[in-house]
Amino acid sequence: MTERKSPRFAARTSKEEIETGLSFQPKFDADGLIPAIVTEAGSDTVLMFAWMNEEALALTIETRLAHFWSRSRRALWKKGAESGNLLKVVEMRTDCDQDVVWLRAEVLGEGHACHTGRHSCFYRSVPLGTFPAGALPLAKAEDL
Amino acid sequence: MTERKSPRFAARTSKEEIETGLSFQPKFDADGLIPAIVTEAGSDTVLMFAWMNEEALALTIETRLAHFWSRSRRALWKKGAESGNLLKVVEMRTDCDQDVVWLRAEVLGEGHACHTGRHSCFYRSVPLGTFPAGALPLAKAEDL
Repeated sequence: MTERKSPRFAARTSKEEIETGLSFQPKFDADGLIPAIVTEAGSDTVLMFAWMNEEALALTIETRLAHFWSRSRRALWKKGAESGNLLKVVEMRTDCDQDVVWLRAEVLGEGHACHTGRHSCFYRSVPLGTFPAGALPLAKAEDL
Repeated sequence: MTERKSPRFAARTSKEEIETGLSFQPKFDADGLIPAIVTEAGSDTVLMFAWMNEEALALTIETRLAHFWSRSRRALWKKGAESGNLLKVVEMRTDCDQDVVWLRAEVLGEGHACHTGRHSCFYRSVPLGTFPAGALPLAKAEDL
């Protein structure tokens, strides 16, 4: 991927406009990326978390299929292009600062949003209430 | 906040151990931060997104009240400490790569997770299906 010559999204304006206005002015970080939260349409269970560059965000909006930027592979990544587990985006939202997007999506194919073959990437929980000195154990979340 | 001299979490080991093991080995980025998704306990509506450093993550686990790292103020931030809109964490999960945490939380006080006074930060949606050349309009999400 070569870097885009011209931005495809509106420039950031004032804090007030960004927080209360109805113009999409997404903030990309120093690496040109914006975080994306994906939840399951209907239940809102969190399925995965990934990053988008301008191109990935524009393609997701246009095609309704989730695209991301793979930071490890440094490449545009159409989620499920190989596995068939595409993410069909039902709704997209942005937050007050417009520096995050939230996708409500249906997982197509076999229904695996996680590359490990699980429905959701969040299949382990962190125990709460104490912070022991040694390593903190995780627990398997049985509902996912 | 001075930087911590010694890490409080287990060191990262192998990809296999991180993905399938039951030892919490959270990954902090180059700035020492890990992203945190907060959803509402019960409905799983996404309420907000923020960042934690080691101290914030450890305090959240220990106290069950969400703590973050404010990147703009460069300070530890106990969510709701001033407003009363504390986030009581019911469950914490991590993802396959252990580089994100997801908190299921109850919003105390007046129930505002967003600093704008709204219940959720995600009160605007991004239209899908076309990508016009000009600025992209947002729509108010009426359910939040």
